Amino acid sequence: MKKRVLALTPGDPAGIGPEITWKAIQSGSIDKNIALLCVGAREPFEKLKVPILEANPLSGSFQPPEMNQPHVWLWPAPLTSPHGSLLEGYQVGWSIEQATQLVLKQAVSALVTGPISKERLQKGGYIYPGHTEFLAALCQTREVTMMLANSILRVSLVTTHLGIQDVSLNLTREKIRKSILQTVQGLRDFWGIEKPRIAVTALNPHAGEKGLFGKEEITTIQPEIESLKKSAGASFTIDGPFPADTFFAKHILTPAEDRYDAVVCMYHDQGLIPVKLLDFHNTVNVTLGLPMIRTSVDHGVGFDIAGKGVADPSSLLAAIKLATHFVEKRHGKN
Amino acid sequence: MKKRVLALTPGDPAGIGPEITWKAIQSGSIDKNIALLCVGAREPFEKLKVPILEANPLSGSFQPPEMNQPHVWLWPAPLTSPHGSLLEGYQVGWSIEQATQLVLKQAVSALVTGPISKERLQKGGYIYPGHTEFLAALCQTREVTMMLANSILRVSLVTTHLGIQDVSLNLTREKIRKSILQTVQGLRDFWGIEKPRIAVTALNPHAGEKGLFGKEEITTIQPEIESLKKSAGASFTIDGPFPADTFFAKHILTPAEDRYDAVVCMYHDQGLIPVKLLDFHNTVNVTLGLPMIRTSVDHGVGFDIAGKGVADPSSLLAAIKLATHFVEKRHGKN
Repeated sequence: MKKRVLALTPGDPAGIGPEITWKAIQSGSIDKNIALLCVGAREPFEKLKVPILEANPLSGSFQPPEMNQPHVWLWPAPLTSPHGSLLEGYQVGWSIEQATQLVLKQAVSALVTGPISKERLQKGGYIYPGHTEFLAALCQTREVTMMLANSILRVSLVTTHLGIQDVSLNLTREKIRKSILQTVQGLRDFWGIEKPRIAVTALNPHAGEKGLFGKEEITTIQPEIESLKKSAGASFTIDGPFPADTFFAKHILTPAEDRYDAVVCMYHDQGLIPVKLLDFHNTVNVTLGLPMIRTSVDHGVGFDIAGKGVADPSSLLAAIKLATHFVEKRHGKN
Repeated sequence: MKKRVLALTPGDPAGIGPEITWKAIQSGSIDKNIALLCVGAREPFEKLKVPILEANPLSGSFQPPEMNQPHVWLWPAPLTSPHGSLLEGYQVGWSIEQATQLVLKQAVSALVTGPISKERLQKGGYIYPGHTEFLAALCQTREVTMMLANSILRVSLVTTHLGIQDVSLNLTREKIRKSILQTVQGLRDFWGIEKPRIAVTALNPHAGEKGLFGKEEITTIQPEIESLKKSAGASFTIDGPFPADTFFAKHILTPAEDRYDAVVCMYHDQGLIPVKLLDFHNTVNVTLGLPMIRTSVDHGVGFDIAGKGVADPSSLLAAIKLATHFVEKRHGKN
């Protein structure tokens, strides 16, 4: 049986990405029918004294190598950057660009990404506010939804990297609708849940207490939920807006089979506090709305612990496993 | 040994308060040296067919009754309300007022409160945005701090019942300082932690990512932390602002003895999502900054499940036990 290939960008060369990539490969827990094509800088893997087998998908020599010992199968990033930009930032941007093209051309089955520094990516010449926006641009997709998932909870975000002061202004019925519908579609496409059950959190404490502490529930969230309820018919269910402080506590006290399949949250920390608290090391970032499968670690570059050998590969392994699961589901269907 | 008396207001007569009060009394798990004086409406206890022994602290007959079987020792609220106000709302307000006076006069040792409906309290003639503000007014205290605590986590809130849109505007250095200092004092007075270790969360995702998504960390939170660090000397430690999405996940992965003693959070759901998620049924609301001990359930009135006999008394029991612990600590010291 031919192995399926996942493209993996280890992320910033100076962060923990290369180390956790190597630890994940060595763990022996990656599916035997999966080959990882790493796309990124060669130098950090040389530092780790890792067996490297070079790949060049552009020249046609593009078969997973036959080698029994653990190794890094690597498409190395260029060694010089244009216009005096930061080399390592450029290498990160180049890797994401190339790896995404491979997935879009169906040369590989999915993309798994390691942690990057936005600041260094931008110094490398790629002016994007984050990974997700960069990928949306590469895929020529205007709207995507960031989801974080582990085995206990899946949360989707209506707004992401915004200051708290700007959340309310940016909360529109259109954005709420888009996030809910992309969540429904993602649950169907990736997890095979045909009739998803969606919960929506409120923006304000106590869901605004009937307008006493904020009116967005009344003006925006509730009307959109009602409208979607009508158009959904029997194809999915949607409830809310629920006060967030008790929603997650009740979620985990509910038997797993009765829980909502996903929770659409209004802002970054509202969704990320509970999902990370419930299983920090095995939480995976999934981008919904892209024309491809993309999973990612849910943590940062860890510059403070890089090079010390102490970084935990669990989230990257979880991202690889979830992408593997999605790929198998998709090809099992076709 | 003379029993110490705690005043308990069961909360809204139409909610689950009276039921969980009776369940807590029957549980047999309240300290034997503690007597509960319930202050509130008689009617819901009559409905529950509970043995009631009447108390009237104003007439002098104010000794815990000698009775071996479980019973409710009750100071009953009036049966008529003034000016045509909602009787049950008036009874709730009257109970809180009277019970607070008993604590302030040192006729009883502490106040434990059950769940109330703000709306019905206001219809009863008591125009307060919530329990905490009502108590602050009764105690003639301008500034108090709401803390929620269980055995895993204690969180204090800088802002409480505010819409998300108003949080940033209301976040001042003075309020942050007040919350931190009242948290330090509360940890010393109530828990006996002489040199508390305090963590402070950021307001914005990723702590604002160096000002990219919000500048309050730079303009307000960080400067106040630095200023308090200087004035604290060796008397307490304070760190932050930490990005909230990873802070709580790391907190529970830290060995208990190395954790921060309390986390000062910028807004309601930021603190309440994690603390309730970690131990919903045993989380207690403690008001810091009052000239008395006050604990409370952390849940609502449960009008939807009231009268069905299914309400869970855990949070009320936890509130009674924590108040008991504080009272013993205080009297042990004196």
